[in-house]
Amino acid sequence: MLEEIIARIQGLDQESAAGAKSRQDLLTKPKGSLGRLEELSVQLAGIFRTPLPSIRDKVIVIIAGDHGVVAEGVSAFPQEVTFQMVLSFLNGGAAINVLARHVDARVVVVDMGVAHDFEPSPLLIVRKIAHGTANMAQGPAMTPEHAMRSILAGAEVIKSEISHGLDIVGTGDMGIGNTTPSAAIAAALTGERPAKIAGRGTGVDEEGFRRKVHVIERALSVNRPDPKDGLDVLAKVGGFEIGGLVGVILGAAANGKPIMVDGFISTAAAMIAVTLAPAVRGYLISAHRSRESGHGLMLDWLGLKPLFDFDMRLGEGTGSAMGFSIAEASCKVLTEMATFAEAGVAERR
Amino acid sequence: MLEEIIARIQGLDQESAAGAKSRQDLLTKPKGSLGRLEELSVQLAGIFRTPLPSIRDKVIVIIAGDHGVVAEGVSAFPQEVTFQMVLSFLNGGAAINVLARHVDARVVVVDMGVAHDFEPSPLLIVRKIAHGTANMAQGPAMTPEHAMRSILAGAEVIKSEISHGLDIVGTGDMGIGNTTPSAAIAAALTGERPAKIAGRGTGVDEEGFRRKVHVIERALSVNRPDPKDGLDVLAKVGGFEIGGLVGVILGAAANGKPIMVDGFISTAAAMIAVTLAPAVRGYLISAHRSRESGHGLMLDWLGLKPLFDFDMRLGEGTGSAMGFSIAEASCKVLTEMATFAEAGVAERR
Repeated sequence: MLEEIIARIQGLDQESAAGAKSRQDLLTKPKGSLGRLEELSVQLAGIFRTPLPSIRDKVIVIIAGDHGVVAEGVSAFPQEVTFQMVLSFLNGGAAINVLARHVDARVVVVDMGVAHDFEPSPLLIVRKIAHGTANMAQGPAMTPEHAMRSILAGAEVIKSEISHGLDIVGTGDMGIGNTTPSAAIAAALTGERPAKIAGRGTGVDEEGFRRKVHVIERALSVNRPDPKDGLDVLAKVGGFEIGGLVGVILGAAANGKPIMVDGFISTAAAMIAVTLAPAVRGYLISAHRSRESGHGLMLDWLGLKPLFDFDMRLGEGTGSAMGFSIAEASCKVLTEMATFAEAGVAERR
Repeated sequence: MLEEIIARIQGLDQESAAGAKSRQDLLTKPKGSLGRLEELSVQLAGIFRTPLPSIRDKVIVIIAGDHGVVAEGVSAFPQEVTFQMVLSFLNGGAAINVLARHVDARVVVVDMGVAHDFEPSPLLIVRKIAHGTANMAQGPAMTPEHAMRSILAGAEVIKSEISHGLDIVGTGDMGIGNTTPSAAIAAALTGERPAKIAGRGTGVDEEGFRRKVHVIERALSVNRPDPKDGLDVLAKVGGFEIGGLVGVILGAAANGKPIMVDGFISTAAAMIAVTLAPAVRGYLISAHRSRESGHGLMLDWLGLKPLFDFDMRLGEGTGSAMGFSIAEASCKVLTEMATFAEAGVAERR
């Protein structure tokens, strides 16, 4: 089933991309003068397989999960905040709700492994695999079966949203402690030292930071994840929401939809997705560079250049939401601007 | 009259800014985790003199003018493009029209010195001072009287827009050849060599670039603008649209409204405005770093950090329009997010 999804990921349509590039050069502006907006429109043309791409239905998928590794004291916030923040997403008062409304995006919230049971809500998709992962400092965070289930559950969620009209997905995460597994994933896949990748997360102090780095080192030496095997890395040092995001990313690419990758946690998920299916890379747009120290290294490993750098480090898809507006603008410039001929404007000498 | 405008520019309201900062720290996110969005909301609170700022009516003011210095061959495009692009703004097919619609902003177009007369149009504000400036490589671009008139005309335009409800203004420019006077202004005010500040503009080749640098050097040595006297710099090596933007910036600050500064030309205008009235600085937001080489130096001189860097170099207010969306988002986060207490979310340990 995962193999089927991966097999369906096509390369971008070079003809559509070339058509978009040619059209950009006819529009009433000096060639290339809209820089990144032009590049992005060309990428989106290749993804949507049309020289005139458009983005209407924008969806942030936030996946939530808890982490056994919080027992090691790696987060500044208590674990119940994962549960409480999910309720806040449903109530519409969190940062992602505000930013999604601002850019006219929908928010889809998924419980994939919160250590608490929710009252049924029409706004919450429950795909709970377990009540939090195991403590990766002592053994694997998940069984290989649970890791696979998280990916497939994420792929099902995105498939359903695409059937409801989704044009672009923005990844979002919620999980107290999840910068720790994300840094472990990045360290495993890049081979960099955890101290170079881990950051302060929600705001641990100097002692907390040293503890966090040590916990990541321990998780890697206890579990020895195989950097060639994305599923192994995910199972041993990942998390349910990270696995779910891997599925969202693979599923979106398999269905020809672009993925706006949020910050540190989402980028760790993207790294696993690219390890499993290198062709997914062309479908990724990095929204922003997070304040979390190692994020730049991770983006370099993926070959992605973030759209903006606001020193954000919140997750939830907050960067993705801001990025949606930029992606949409890039399509509108391509499709709505007049050409030199249409506008009767003289071209360069 | 200019003195009156300048005298009305107040410092930002520190109490409102402090109120916004305190509220940011109560919202359901780790302190500071929205980075630049938080900082921007605090600045806007100080400008609007309320801890709960909001932005509704967003206006791009594009001022157009022609430049006698194009006789020296400093631009890749012919002069009539200024006139043609103004018509394009009125017809709604230019990049700025597309981006302004995207962020729900109005576009106001002003002819302050185009070398061509327009048919009357309800969409065009005509404040024409002359049919283009004189060639600054041979003498002053404008008389001191004309320079002053351009500033006052810009201040009148913004005053009128504020009376119609404007909450934030984005600067925009149109004027073939205007990266040359803008680079001359920046060189005069910073003392840097023109070769370090000038760029390729709309796309001159290597020979055109050398010619452009030489023309700027000649304009500075022929005119000897006084870097302590903003009006003198504007008159000798500026342009009508640049003077108009100086007036827009001063007038907006005098009326307590934030200014989203676009790229290279708008930043040159902001430098003149700050030279005339240092208190204007607090009202400025730099939208983006332009691809034009010296723009970073100019932003450093102003002490401004751009919101984004998309390698854009179009002008028209295209960067300002994208910046509007970010400024609006920053206010919404501040005013619409739930606090920890409201949401029942646990705070950090």
